[in-house]
Amino acid sequence: MTTSLSRRSLLGRLLAGATGALATMAFGRHDMPLQGAMPAVPPDPTKVPGGPTSVLGARSAFESPERILFATASKTPLQDLHGTVTPSDLHYERHHGGVPGIDPERYTLLVHGMVERPTVFTLADLKRFPAVTRTHFLECSGNFTPNAPENITPQELCGMTSQTEWTGVPLATLFREIGADPAATWFLAEGEDAAVLARSIPVSKAWDDAMIAYAQNGEALRPCNGYPARLLLPGWEGNTNVKWLRRIELASEPFMTREETSKYTEALKNGTARQFSFVIDARSIITNPCYPERVQPGWIEFRGLAWSGRGRIATVDVSVDEGATWQRATLETPVQTKAHTRFRYLWRWDGREATVLSRATDETGYVQPTVRELVEARGPGAGPYHLNPITGWRLKPDGRVLFRTEPWA
Amino acid sequence: MTTSLSRRSLLGRLLAGATGALATMAFGRHDMPLQGAMPAVPPDPTKVPGGPTSVLGARSAFESPERILFATASKTPLQDLHGTVTPSDLHYERHHGGVPGIDPERYTLLVHGMVERPTVFTLADLKRFPAVTRTHFLECSGNFTPNAPENITPQELCGMTSQTEWTGVPLATLFREIGADPAATWFLAEGEDAAVLARSIPVSKAWDDAMIAYAQNGEALRPCNGYPARLLLPGWEGNTNVKWLRRIELASEPFMTREETSKYTEALKNGTARQFSFVIDARSIITNPCYPERVQPGWIEFRGLAWSGRGRIATVDVSVDEGATWQRATLETPVQTKAHTRFRYLWRWDGREATVLSRATDETGYVQPTVRELVEARGPGAGPYHLNPITGWRLKPDGRVLFRTEPWA
Repeated sequence: MTTSLSRRSLLGRLLAGATGALATMAFGRHDMPLQGAMPAVPPDPTKVPGGPTSVLGARSAFESPERILFATASKTPLQDLHGTVTPSDLHYERHHGGVPGIDPERYTLLVHGMVERPTVFTLADLKRFPAVTRTHFLECSGNFTPNAPENITPQELCGMTSQTEWTGVPLATLFREIGADPAATWFLAEGEDAAVLARSIPVSKAWDDAMIAYAQNGEALRPCNGYPARLLLPGWEGNTNVKWLRRIELASEPFMTREETSKYTEALKNGTARQFSFVIDARSIITNPCYPERVQPGWIEFRGLAWSGRGRIATVDVSVDEGATWQRATLETPVQTKAHTRFRYLWRWDGREATVLSRATDETGYVQPTVRELVEARGPGAGPYHLNPITGWRLKPDGRVLFRTEPWA
Repeated sequence: MTTSLSRRSLLGRLLAGATGALATMAFGRHDMPLQGAMPAVPPDPTKVPGGPTSVLGARSAFESPERILFATASKTPLQDLHGTVTPSDLHYERHHGGVPGIDPERYTLLVHGMVERPTVFTLADLKRFPAVTRTHFLECSGNFTPNAPENITPQELCGMTSQTEWTGVPLATLFREIGADPAATWFLAEGEDAAVLARSIPVSKAWDDAMIAYAQNGEALRPCNGYPARLLLPGWEGNTNVKWLRRIELASEPFMTREETSKYTEALKNGTARQFSFVIDARSIITNPCYPERVQPGWIEFRGLAWSGRGRIATVDVSVDEGATWQRATLETPVQTKAHTRFRYLWRWDGREATVLSRATDETGYVQPTVRELVEARGPGAGPYHLNPITGWRLKPDGRVLFRTEPWA
């Protein structure tokens, strides 16, 4: 992407765009088909006083990013986002009993079971402990649909992954404070929602990198993301990161809750199912261009996200020939562990039909599988959780961008 | 902070807090004196269905972070924030003619002057270029008040610094595209606001790390921060990062605009003034605890932010004896260049009056000066720009936390 030839060609496209813009200007106000009331935009903003200061800096009325809504979930508009931060109000949500209203002054977290000193912590107590700040993705384990149609967006396909700078207290600190019994191997994490969602978590995760998070991107958690405090298990499937956390109980065996028996287990091809499949496998997706965009021949920067629950993304490879050959994409730095990593790949499209795929590899050597490899390993009934196959986009000669995945079985 | 003794003492405070919480619970609902309508909070959130999904995940009604407003500026509530990200709607703002309303479809950026191909770029043009994402602070050069009173908050004292993950196109890319004349040494950056704010910038900054930013924390810039596109000069004083950027003109000398003659120059002690003082010097501030908080004897984690326009923060030192001795604070990683860096320092306060200061050193070896050193170097009339002295907080035996600074002259 540094040859003068490539830049010159890019320039050609840009000048064409600029000409169009000048033509628009000559015809005055360009009305956009946006929803809602349009803002008062003066013909020349330099000739009238601008707006005043405000307590909160609202979005432009021309911008209206939205989560897609389902009964118990909403999805992040991945294709509308840049960089790696997910704005807090666009973080995906998933709940099993709705979003509870919790008064932070009344909130408490009970830690008990196999501990020396059962303790009730207030929110103020949690905030007084030495804090840590870590940037991690959070992904629902049910974030994929086999045999998805061509007219699907990144948000629809896998918008249940988001990224946040979390702040909280390491769970290990609390466990040391209350004297966790060395014989305790599991703990129950229980939420204060109407579902009283509960999961069994190995204590080893507490000693590793689990935290009780109370802040999200600098400020208090949003209610749909666990206000005032939630469990955060970096790299582990979303539902184990119990929101509205009210109780932790240490024990010597798992608790076998509903969410780890009837749900959140995955069928394997030998007729059995696997349980406690916590870790999110490495995955990537090209977020731009995507359906329903239209593209033109010439230089296109393919942009996407890659992430792994096992550690850092090592490489992302892009194929423009449906997987026959692969080229290395550029990763934005810093590449953080268990975090969305932005990748970019500049390619000159000649206008002929082409399929562009992305493939993530993490620092443990785990390589994102093809659909075929995934089905071979886990069977055609695999899912609905922990599906992370290679996918991509088919560029059509008419400029359409259509989702591309292999048939499931 | 890892001795068992310290943890045991910390536990003592925590159990005291927990007891208080249990007492509160025994007496039922704890009504808080918050502004506005209080949310409907059920006595037991697990016994009633929670709220539905929503297009945007709003803040809890119990949380209402706010910028302090002035006629042409607003300030970030630093003491209310965790980690390093400033939520976009809490980023400080400063404008000289109000916030202009700009239609992104009509927006254009003209680049001309000493270039081979004068070009008008649309917003879509800018977004098609290879993009970069970088996390940087942005600070107004007038972000300090000498002789501030004891009852001042971090927000009031220096809330005109904020941090964002910016995405945009490197200015160097545009300059290569349009064929910047190698003899060009300065460029004018001009905004589309009612003030038509303009600054002269050395072209060398374009070849270094300047960018045209169109995204802030993953989404479009907020109008008060330059929507739809602004100049970003990492580490340089805020006003040079021209918002609502509409024109760049390359030349062989500075343009001597109003903002670099009557304003944004600093008095020196020999009766002259310095001009084009772009770089933000290294600085730190303890954001918690702070006025008007009350503290109790025992372990306190002092938390703050440090930053430098010259590069990475190397170290932050904390003094608990008014500067007589200094200890090393812990820095949150990753420490990024020209970025707010969160530091933490755990100290056991015995309840006697004490003054706690912080001092930043950046990777170039620049050390944040005392007030005395700053006044000695630049004279008692120094300012109002680029004032970055060491400050801190005085803990009073009654628990009050009062701002501490040396007298100015």
